[in-house]
Amino acid sequence: MQLSPTLELAMNLIRRRSVTPDDADCQALMMQHLEPLGFKGESMRFGDVDNLWARRGTEGPVLAFAGHTDVVPTGPEKNWSIAPFEPTIRDGYLYGRGAADMKGSLAAFVTACERFVAQHPDHKGSIALLITSDEEGPALDGTVKVVETLEKRNEKIDWCLIGEPSSTHQVGDVIKNGRRGSLHGYLTVHGIQGHVAYPHLAENPVHTAAPALDALAKTEWDQGNEFFPATTFQITKVDAGTGSNVIPGELTVHFNFRYCTENTAESLQQRVIDILDQHKLKYDLQWHLSGEPFLTERGSLVDAASKGIKAVTGRETELSTSGGTSDGRFIAPTGAQVVELGPVNATIHKTDECVKAEDLDTLSAIYEEMLVRLLVE
Amino acid sequence: MQLSPTLELAMNLIRRRSVTPDDADCQALMMQHLEPLGFKGESMRFGDVDNLWARRGTEGPVLAFAGHTDVVPTGPEKNWSIAPFEPTIRDGYLYGRGAADMKGSLAAFVTACERFVAQHPDHKGSIALLITSDEEGPALDGTVKVVETLEKRNEKIDWCLIGEPSSTHQVGDVIKNGRRGSLHGYLTVHGIQGHVAYPHLAENPVHTAAPALDALAKTEWDQGNEFFPATTFQITKVDAGTGSNVIPGELTVHFNFRYCTENTAESLQQRVIDILDQHKLKYDLQWHLSGEPFLTERGSLVDAASKGIKAVTGRETELSTSGGTSDGRFIAPTGAQVVELGPVNATIHKTDECVKAEDLDTLSAIYEEMLVRLLVE
Repeated sequence: MQLSPTLELAMNLIRRRSVTPDDADCQALMMQHLEPLGFKGESMRFGDVDNLWARRGTEGPVLAFAGHTDVVPTGPEKNWSIAPFEPTIRDGYLYGRGAADMKGSLAAFVTACERFVAQHPDHKGSIALLITSDEEGPALDGTVKVVETLEKRNEKIDWCLIGEPSSTHQVGDVIKNGRRGSLHGYLTVHGIQGHVAYPHLAENPVHTAAPALDALAKTEWDQGNEFFPATTFQITKVDAGTGSNVIPGELTVHFNFRYCTENTAESLQQRVIDILDQHKLKYDLQWHLSGEPFLTERGSLVDAASKGIKAVTGRETELSTSGGTSDGRFIAPTGAQVVELGPVNATIHKTDECVKAEDLDTLSAIYEEMLVRLLVE
Repeated sequence: MQLSPTLELAMNLIRRRSVTPDDADCQALMMQHLEPLGFKGESMRFGDVDNLWARRGTEGPVLAFAGHTDVVPTGPEKNWSIAPFEPTIRDGYLYGRGAADMKGSLAAFVTACERFVAQHPDHKGSIALLITSDEEGPALDGTVKVVETLEKRNEKIDWCLIGEPSSTHQVGDVIKNGRRGSLHGYLTVHGIQGHVAYPHLAENPVHTAAPALDALAKTEWDQGNEFFPATTFQITKVDAGTGSNVIPGELTVHFNFRYCTENTAESLQQRVIDILDQHKLKYDLQWHLSGEPFLTERGSLVDAASKGIKAVTGRETELSTSGGTSDGRFIAPTGAQVVELGPVNATIHKTDECVKAEDLDTLSAIYEEMLVRLLVE
């Protein structure tokens, strides 16, 4: 069977066991393809994370493809129908850990560049790749550090195409032009510990907190907007007491907001405080802002993506801001337009992760179309 | 310093390190005093628990003194101002683990019997002692098993005086003529686990349970009655989730009722189920009935106790049914009248446990008065 260059490169990347934060030389393999095209590669290692910044050209505007070589663990390999690091094509699908998230996209980046540079050696602006090996992990020494480094030397990204698997049923049916923010809250409600036989000498924090938690769960934070679904609040942990005959002295509650641009981290924090105070709770409250929401409205990048998809597949793409966070949260604040466009995400992080083999070639063709629209026309 | 016989015996009992379920030969020491008086002792060992049933006489009615030789652990001995098993008299107080709960009472039982039998060798009915070494522990192989054994051979207790520390400020100011019931509930609320970014695909059991827990905490179960305070409900444990970005699939809630004779275990169970169903929760619910409520109304035993206290101390005693459970819950269901009367409970289960030294002699005199009123007059 004759493999396309994209499929062959994807399989060679899957063979490298790059479980977070291990790059397993995936970035070096990509550079073997990019260097002959005139890309200058720069390895940036932070902690135990390998990052690659590769750029062809010195002028602006800069179109950066962003992605990650690391994959999530396989879980027990016996639950897979293939060995997860031995890529296999079966019934037209490529199986292997990372096939969809996101070594297929990395391969499509590289082969799109190969064809594009051969056709347009004198394109305007620059093409770049921003690749990390810690997107699936704590994400502290990955994209965020590369972006800091670029900012310090005043190197700008104008357009960023993230290869995360954005598609739902068919490649290109959905692209993400923004993401909700994620705000974590850590609440401790104080009571007075005591014996259940003497409740008048104690104060049960589970009893005092119950109506406040109910109010938080029932609050409508906003109604979303044209681009975003409504903000959601979810309690992710509650913990108090040990059972036996003791009234707990403290209740711990962790919660998370996924929030849209109708709220800010500050407005949500204030509203939570108001509800807790209204219920006269004694509490400590700490916050961790995991990512602010971002939005790339219709413009040159969104147009290039949707027209590229239409040209290659005939499909009208849907703009979406749903789903989890991505490294886009680190790139968007620099002022770059950010769009996520990648393969179908049905099997990501699961056993028997797979992607339709021909979709990788389709994806490569779409990326090439975008290069033409942004750096030639 | 000249020690009274009661104080001397209490100190000899405290010197034996009888941490639950170890009797450490305390019962043997008591029998050394009782046998010469004509008591027939019967050791009943169940599992690792030593129990003693000692009786003088073969006729009814039977007045039984009930108590336990075991003590709760000392915790770090460095937090005590004395060595907890080296009884010490300081400023008129006897210090040591078990001084108040309840080796002082055991000594007072024994010396009351000594004086009473010397004065009234031909008293009517029988005097008995029911002593366990597992009141502070799981209480499975202690009083409950002795009572079973007595029931099987049709041996009845008519009056039971438990030496638990019932007094609040001065010895005899409070006696307990009943106890509330204790009912434990173990609730699991089922939801659907999921990612916080996709709450519409999940069902958060903390969110669905919050209004039901609030309703349970706010319910008035009854208003108590002449003898009992109102029934109380307390949540003793809640547990769900691990934090991170996961909506928990399950919520665990433990709770406890202390309930009076205006409710039954069955009526409370049904009312909890009604509230949970009203909130349309999916749940599992298990129950453990730790003890049914019991009540000894005014009658021969309560009278003997309150008149004995009045005669010895001049005090009017208060009848109470508050506080935790005791082994009375196992004896009352046989039809016996049950009253608890013992020293001041301010320091029980604490470091530097102590009792006013002269209170033990007062207690012994009260017990003797009760013997006279019940088995002579």
